[in-house]
This record gives sequence, structure tokens and C-alpha cells, in this order.
Amino acid sequence: MKGFRDFYPEDKRIQNWIFNTWKKIAEHYGYEEIEGPILEETEIYSKSGQEIPEQMYTFKDKSGKLITIRPETTPTIARMIKSKKELKLPIKWYSVSRCLRYERPQFGRSREFFQFNLDCLGSKNMSMDAEVITTSIKMMREFGLSKNDFYVRVSNRRLFNDLVNSIGIDGKGIQKIARILDKLCKFSDNEIEKELKKEKISGDKIKKLFTFLNIKDLNKIKIKSQGLDELKELFSYLKVYDIAKYCILDLSTMRGFDYYTGTVFEVSDKEKEFRAIAGGGRYDNLAGIPGVGYGMGDIVLELFLKKNKRIPNFSKNIDYYIAPVNKFVLKEAIKIAELLRRKYNIEIDLMCRNLRKQLNYASSINAREVIIIGEEELNKREVTIRDMVSGEEKKVKFVNLLR
Amino acid sequence: MKGFRDFYPEDKRIQNWIFNTWKKIAEHYGYEEIEGPILEETEIYSKSGQEIPEQMYTFKDKSGKLITIRPETTPTIARMIKSKKELKLPIKWYSVSRCLRYERPQFGRSREFFQFNLDCLGSKNMSMDAEVITTSIKMMREFGLSKNDFYVRVSNRRLFNDLVNSIGIDGKGIQKIARILDKLCKFSDNEIEKELKKEKISGDKIKKLFTFLNIKDLNKIKIKSQGLDELKELFSYLKVYDIAKYCILDLSTMRGFDYYTGTVFEVSDKEKEFRAIAGGGRYDNLAGIPGVGYGMGDIVLELFLKKNKRIPNFSKNIDYYIAPVNKFVLKEAIKIAELLRRKYNIEIDLMCRNLRKQLNYASSINAREVIIIGEEELNKREVTIRDMVSGEEKKVKFVNLLR
Repeated sequence: MKGFRDFYPEDKRIQNWIFNTWKKIAEHYGYEEIEGPILEETEIYSKSGQEIPEQMYTFKDKSGKLITIRPETTPTIARMIKSKKELKLPIKWYSVSRCLRYERPQFGRSREFFQFNLDCLGSKNMSMDAEVITTSIKMMREFGLSKNDFYVRVSNRRLFNDLVNSIGIDGKGIQKIARILDKLCKFSDNEIEKELKKEKISGDKIKKLFTFLNIKDLNKIKIKSQGLDELKELFSYLKVYDIAKYCILDLSTMRGFDYYTGTVFEVSDKEKEFRAIAGGGRYDNLAGIPGVGYGMGDIVLELFLKKNKRIPNFSKNIDYYIAPVNKFVLKEAIKIAELLRRKYNIEIDLMCRNLRKQLNYASSINAREVIIIGEEELNKREVTIRDMVSGEEKKVKFVNLLR
Repeated sequence: MKGFRDFYPEDKRIQNWIFNTWKKIAEHYGYEEIEGPILEETEIYSKSGQEIPEQMYTFKDKSGKLITIRPETTPTIARMIKSKKELKLPIKWYSVSRCLRYERPQFGRSREFFQFNLDCLGSKNMSMDAEVITTSIKMMREFGLSKNDFYVRVSNRRLFNDLVNSIGIDGKGIQKIARILDKLCKFSDNEIEKELKKEKISGDKIKKLFTFLNIKDLNKIKIKSQGLDELKELFSYLKVYDIAKYCILDLSTMRGFDYYTGTVFEVSDKEKEFRAIAGGGRYDNLAGIPGVGYGMGDIVLELFLKKNKRIPNFSKNIDYYIAPVNKFVLKEAIKIAELLRRKYNIEIDLMCRNLRKQLNYASSINAREVIIIGEEELNKREVTIRDMVSGEEKKVKFVNLLR
């Protein structure tokens, strides 16, 4: 079906490499894997912004209940945290979740995708935000990407609100501006200005807005704001983590979710060719305890890695291919295969092919060595091992096979 | 929601152990992982028997197309094979797939489950069936289970059809009987007899039916049947694989799917307390090429492993917990944590706790060792490492930390 992917072995190898990299870095930082259901009651997505609820697969089940195939994971995490009382703090969770959104299939989008989520809950301390952002950068580096390839835009919703407020806009106006700015990456400044004017925001205010959106140095902001203090503290931690070089202050960073309360950040490609590679922020009012987290989807990431030629060549992981020369030795060959499977990945002929065809096949699946089982050799309790790269062959006794 | 599970870290550790065991054995036998979409067009499940289509989550998407959340994986595998021309034979695939069925939540059932599938396609040779069955037994053994705990019921649909045919029943009658026998595990012989009588099958035929269902030795079957030859060959291979001791001939083994054509088998617990742990068979007409495969769900397996006390105790996998004694050393502590994360799984205090509380927390997550960062030690460029089991402490220089 359009917008859905089949992962054949060659695709799944790449996906597993991505998944394993996500997991490895998350575990280096002490996060543990969790998993939630793929169906949730629709109402838990009421804070998921404007776009997502429009794209959800929502239907009634046989009992008439309105349910949704999850479009994102954070509401599930919040629900899981609220429904279990005795959780130790901090909560450090990650997940690799299949999510669905009914979007128009296009470049960099798919109706079904896998999202890595990492969440840390339990404190409002900015050291938490810093650790969470650090993991996203360590992922990118583990994928072989450098600061020439990507950067992280960092902002704070509280500071943004205070700044917009300081130019005489409040409440609903702030939310409207936030939603318009969320599209910044898709639209030019001129288009943004047009949108803002539609919302009856004066030219003078728009000018002031653009002025502070372009601020690159926190010390130039002179208003009193808890968000400003948080952001300063966050940047001081980013230096300690030695990742400040990847991070820039960008007050136009919004993230489309209504549940973010403080820090927001987005991992982007430097050439701005793709949508955000990852994005997240702090949500202090969603799960009953303060927390911060992000999601990194597989679709944009894989396109980005492909473009930058960072995806290794993976082939089937076979240690030995076992080739019985004819059907009379097949059963002995199976016994040898079984012995070796205690330790190795082994494939044996199941197609009753002749030796030449078996060697061709073994070569096509990149088997390193082929163990040829011949009648004469069997009598001597030995086999022939053929190196598929050099073509060299050697005889090995049964008893030495597992050494 | 009822029938859906949340996997907290302690649950996910067990699930990952199950998944990794599945994967390890499959790869020892040269199978490669694949994955399909969770939504499919409803029509691909038309051969999935009687029960499954009644339990599917089916709905119309926004374009009005009838789609289904997958209740099983085999039709997806068949579709993937049919839609790709240049696949090398044999096809040796496995997958760990989330599937959904709208069943009444009860013991051993859940609306959402994960199913391991292993499929081998390309030949009608019984060596394929034998290898596939062997992997299911190797899984069980890898989970710590023995022949006292489980066994494998083996049959052949062709032979069953020929036998039923030989007592004067054909076509639709065979299918009806197959469906009734599929419930054998749930009903007594008397109940089965009642059901068969409802279908207007004579007492004489029912008697003959029960007679051959109880046959334990293939040599006692005297009719000519391709299925009989296949089953004899299969059992001769099961001996070669040294797993005949786990397998019994049981001609009442049906498996509920209409797409099975030859071999069928089921892994069951010896005490018959649970539903089948795994089940599968040969499907020569589903994917365009002959194949054989099975599914093993996580729900029954986990209950069975729990009952047999085969689930190891897993705890969080943390190498070091890093405890800064106060906020003044936090930033240096972060730097040390970052250094160690090149190699180890590290957790550091993010809650601004005092040392005693940190040690309690480290102990609660089973950290093996705690690295205490003190002000005086920092000046000497060293840390204190505390063994959390013995309580012993030692001083280590920074430069020796990564050795």
C-alpha cells in the first residue's frame, strides 16, 4: 500500500543498524527500553498540537470505543507514568516505536515510520535537558555525522512567550504566532510576514518579533524571564558536555506540540534539505512529573544518512555454507551443520543443487567459507573448507571443526 | 486498554530476552530478519481460516479503502514474495511482528501480541520442513525447556485428506471435519463426536475416523498417499536432526489456516494447560513458490516460561553510577561520565540528591559500582570507586579510569 514499506533482508539490515545505534547510545546514558501498545484511546492525543490529530488513523472498535493507531509516543509514555505509582525517579526510558500518520506520501514522509523516543523525567534541573540533548548529538556522531552535516537549534518556550508578551501580544496571539513560526522551515520570511498580518499583528510588532527571533546571543536579551535563566543554564551545561559547537540559539524553534513548556530543540541538517531529523523539549505538565524528551524518526534520518553516504554495506551474516556434494551425504552434512550451529551461523543446501550451483549461491550470499561434504572425505571423517575469497581449500578433521 | 500491554523496563527486559533468543536461533540456521507493514489490504487474509477474519481490526481509511491491522504475518510474507521478482532461492526469512486480534481478553490471550515467524521457501523437499521444525525445538531448548516440558505434534494435511477420503467422505466434508478437529484441544472426544454427528457423519465413519486419528505408527497406514510418503521422509530427517524424541505423530493436528497443504505441526506443553506455543506448516500455493513456516507468539510462551520458572532475573544494565558529592563538582562529574560512556553504560545523578540518597538509588538499580566524585579527590585528579556488593572503596586516578 502507498506510504507503507516492506523491509526485505537488505532493508532490514540497515534498519537494524539504525535501531541498534539508537539503543547503544541510549544505554550508555542509562536509559532503559520500554514499549507501549500501538492502539490508544483517541483522547490522549488532545495535546498533540494541530497537525497530528488531523492525520491520525482513528476508528471505532467492535465495542464502539474511539481508538487511534499511535501517531507519536510521548502521550503513551505520559499515560504509562501516570498509571503506575511506585516508579523510581528519575525515569529514564527509551523506545523504538512504530507510529502511523495519514499523510500524503511524499519525499521524506511515509504513513508508517519508526520513531526513537528518549525521555527523562523527575526534575526541572537543566542538567536533565542537557543530557537528553547530548544523547541526540551522540547518536548523530555514532552514525558518522559531523558538525559539518547537522546542528541543533535550541530555544525555550517560556522565554519565547515572555518575549512575545514584551511586545504587547498575549494569550491566544502567542499560540497563533507559535503555529505560524512552526512552519518557518517551510516558508520564507515574507510568507511568514503575510501570515502574521492576516492575524492582524501590526507591522511594528512583526518587526520587533523578527528582531528577537534573530538574536544569537542570550546576553543581549534584557527582559526578566525564567525561560532566559533556564536557557543560560542549559547552554552552560552544553559546554560541559562538549557539544556547544553543535548547538545554536534559535528562538524561532517551536516544535508543533502544545505540551512543551520550556526547552525545545530540533536536530536539523545544515543544508536544510530535509525536515527535522529529531525534535523534542520539556513537558512539565503532561505526565504528572516534569520531564524532557525527544523523538527521532527513521525516515528522514535514513534519507539523510544515504545522502551523506554514511550507510555501511551490510551483507547476510553467514559464517559457513555447507555444501553436500550429493543426496547420499546430505544427512551427514546436516549433522555437521547441527554441530557447528552451537557456535556459528550456518546455511546448508535445501534445494538439492549440484556443487557448482551451491558454490554460486554461497558466493551470492557472501558466505566467507564453504564446507564441502564429499563421500570420500566422510569416510576419513574430514571435510573440505573452501575460502570463498582466495579460492583456497583445506582438509579439516571433524574433531577440529569446532575448535 | 483491556487486552493491551504496557511494557515497563522490567517487562521489556524479559521481552527482549525472548526476542533475542528467537533471533539468535534463527540466525544460526541462516534466516534473515524482514518486516512488513502493520496495515494491509483486508483481502489478503481471505485464506486465514474461519476464526481470524472474525477477529480482525478492519476499518476504512480516509480514502475509503478497507484495511486491516495484521492479525498474522504469513499473508504479508506471501505478498512480499509475490511482489518481488528477483529473489534468490531458498528464501529464509524470520520476523518478530506485532499483530492484533479482537479476542475476548482472557488467560493466555491478549488483543495485541508479538509473533515470531520463520519461513523457508523454494522447494518441496522435506529437508526444508525438517529444518523449520528443528528451529522451533531449538528455540524451546534455548529457553531452558526440555522434552519433559513440551512436545511437537506432527501431521500432514494431504495424508489426512486421503485418509478421510478413504472412509468415504470428500470435499466439503473434509473441511468441516478439519474445522471440528481443530477444536480438539478445547473439547473432549464426546463433544467432537456430537459435533461430527451434527454434520450428518455416520457413527461408523466417526469410529473409523477416531481409529486413524489414534494411529501412532506410520507403518500401520496402508493406503497410497503422497502425504504418507512425505511424512515418512520428514520423520527420517527429524531423526537426523536428533529431535525425533520431541516429535509425535498426531493426525488430529490441524492448524486453523486454509492455506496449509502438507506438513502441519504444533509445539505444545506436555501438561496441556496452554494453547499451542507455536504452530505452522507447509503452504505450497500461497506465495507462488512452495514454502513452510511457523509462528510462535509471545503470550503463551511467556506464561509457559513463567510457570516453568525459566525466566532469568534481569536488572538494569548499568556499569557505573556516578555520584557527585555536591553541586560544585557536578560539572566535573559529567565530564568523567562522558569519558566513561565511550565504553560503559553510565548513569549520573540528575536529581541533585545528597550522597546517601544517591547510594540508595544506585543500589536500587543494581549498579555494580559507584564512582564518587569528591572535591578533594578532584584536586588530586582521582575518584573513589565503591563496590556496591562488598562495600569496599578504592581510589583511582583519572588516567586509569578507562583502562
